[in-house]
Amino acid sequence: MALKIKPLSDRVLIEPAAAETKTASGIYIPETAKEKPQKGKVVAVGKGSKKHEMTVKVGDEVLYGKYAGTELKLEGKDYLIMREEDILAIV
Amino acid sequence: MALKIKPLSDRVLIEPAAAETKTASGIYIPETAKEKPQKGKVVAVGKGSKKHEMTVKVGDEVLYGKYAGTELKLEGKDYLIMREEDILAIV
Amino acid sequence: MALKIKPLSDRVLIEPAAAETKTASGIYIPETAKEKPQKGKVVAVGKGSKKHEMTVKVGDEVLYGKYAGTELKLEGKDYLIMREEDILAIV
Amino acid sequence: MALKIKPLSDRVLIEPAAAETKTASGIYIPETAKEKPQKGKVVAVGKGSKKHEMTVKVGDEVLYGKYAGTELKLEGKDYLIMREEDILAIV
Amino acid sequence: MALKIKPLSDRVLIEPAAAETKTASGIYIPETAKEKPQKGKVVAVGKGSKKHEMTVKVGDEVLYGKYAGTELKLEGKDYLIMREEDILAIV
Amino acid sequence: MALKIKPLSDRVLIEPAAAETKTASGIYIPETAKEKPQKGKVVAVGKGSKKHEMTVKVGDEVLYGKYAGTELKLEGKDYLIMREEDILAIV
Amino acid sequence: MALKIKPLSDRVLIEPAAAETKTASGIYIPETAKEKPQKGKVVAVGKGSKKHEMTVKVGDEVLYGKYAGTELKLEGKDYLIMREEDILAIV
Repeated sequence: MALKIKPLSDRVLIEPAAAETKTASGIYIPETAKEKPQKGKVVAVGKGSKKHEMTVKVGDEVLYGKYAGTELKLEGKDYLIMREEDILAIV
Repeated sequence: MALKIKPLSDRVLIEPAAAETKTASGIYIPETAKEKPQKGKVVAVGKGSKKHEMTVKVGDEVLYGKYAGTELKLEGKDYLIMREEDILAIV
Repeated sequence: MALKIKPLSDRVLIEPAAAETKTASGIYIPETAKEKPQKGKVVAVGKGSKKHEMTVKVGDEVLYGKYAGTELKLEGKDYLIMREEDILAIV
Repeated sequence: MALKIKPLSDRVLIEPAAAETKTASGIYIPETAKEKPQKGKVVAVGKGSKKHEMTVKVGDEVLYGKYAGTELKLEGKDYLIMREEDILAIV
Repeated sequence: MALKIKPLSDRVLIEPAAAETKTASGIYIPETAKEKPQKGKVVAVGKGSKKHEMTVKVGDEVLYGKYAGTELKLEGKDYLIMREEDILAIV
Repeated sequence: MALKIKPLSDRVLIEPAAAETKTASGIYIPETAKEKPQKGKVVAVGKGSKKHEMTVKVGDEVLYGKYAGTELKLEGKDYLIMREEDILAIV
Repeated sequence: MALKIKPLSDRVLIEPAAAETKTASGIYIPETAKEKPQKGKVVAVGKGSKKHEMTVKVGDEVLYGKYAGTELKLEGKDYLIMREEDILAIV
């Protein structure tokens, strides 16, 4: 079921992956001192802005910084909304 | 009844939603540690600027950061005025 | 009587409204925790700059942030001079 | 007698008005809490820069912020040199 | 075996060199007070952005600042993801 | 004798005037609370940059802020090297 | 023998001069309170960027700020890698 939310500008809505699961591509979050990226799935993408053309698409699995984005709840599930700039990579 | 206020530049006037209501699209504000977005309805939109073309329209329901905007009272009701940049998504 | 003052660049000279009056359009300054806008009348407008085209005109009633602008006295009356960027809306 | 000084870029040389005089246009510096502008006469003007075209001319009476500019003494008199950006208005 | 990760924008995925090895080109990390660069091999490169065209290619050995990038683990190995701007040189 | 030094970009090499001399144009450094400009002679000028076209020429006497520039010694004499932006005026 | 290192973007690799030598052009590092420049020889130069065209060439003797750059060791010798912007002058 498609969500009715439309992120503004260069923002992306992400469904965070469950914290301990090992993904198909075998990505783990290491446990050392540096800030670690988190993983999630893109569920909605803004139209971009004059300064930023969007790269990620709905369905992409992405890595993003631990403190990136703002939490929100839609239809009872937790999501994160962040600027595409805060996404590190598509995995 | 239309309000006489005209937001300047890339600003948007928003009527905040009542704090505890569950919206039609089922959006809740989660209760965890991170900053949560707020929800409201766009009631007036500026003309934009050279650097920013406006996206939201009067009537849009939007999410915005908890500390975004400046409060003001018009015809006895509370509103928020903020830059469109502070709006996270249309819901 | 027209004032002889010519604001430079993107600046606007504003005659602040008396603090407690209720305006024709019924705007009040609410009394909560957030910073509230102030109201005043535009009495002189700069020519703008390469980066900023002016929107407000002499006679416009405007809202602006509480700490916006610099106070000055002309012909015995108090005024504020601020950048148009600091004006929130025309009411 | 013309001064030999040539302000660089978008700078302006100003002869500050004596602190207590009431000017022809009746401008006073109010005595409240906010920062007040000062008044002076433009005595030399830079050629501007790529980013800034000059507006003030030699002879203009101008208002500027209390802490704007750098003091210097020419032919025994005190002057201020500041960027035109720091000038609030021509009076 | 090629990794499935695709760094976003001007980001580069780097496999850090083991800390004490002496490389073919004889580069050592000196032991003085200043921040020292680290060495690694480029394993994936983003497509760049409007503001940044990419220079490094997969397989390049590069030097980067000690605190550059974000750690992540792929297929059980540690990597760093950073902006190309944080890479000092190709060696 | 010409110096062999070539300032880079928008930098200017200046020979500072002796601290207490009164110049031909009668400039003194006043002794009040604000930061005072210093005076010196331009001895070498960079070629400028894309963002900055040079104005001062070798031989110009200039005023500059008290803390502007970096000291260096050439052929046994003290000089200052600074960006042209830090020069206030040609006197 | 040419080094295999290729500085990225607008970076320059510099071989610092021995601290106490007096150079051919007679440059000394004065011993006063202000930050002093250091001297060295350019051994490798990046290709520049969209925003910065390179000026220095391999073999140039340059002055740079005391805290500019990052130290690295190549073939057993100490070098500094820094942005051309941090180079003050060619001597």
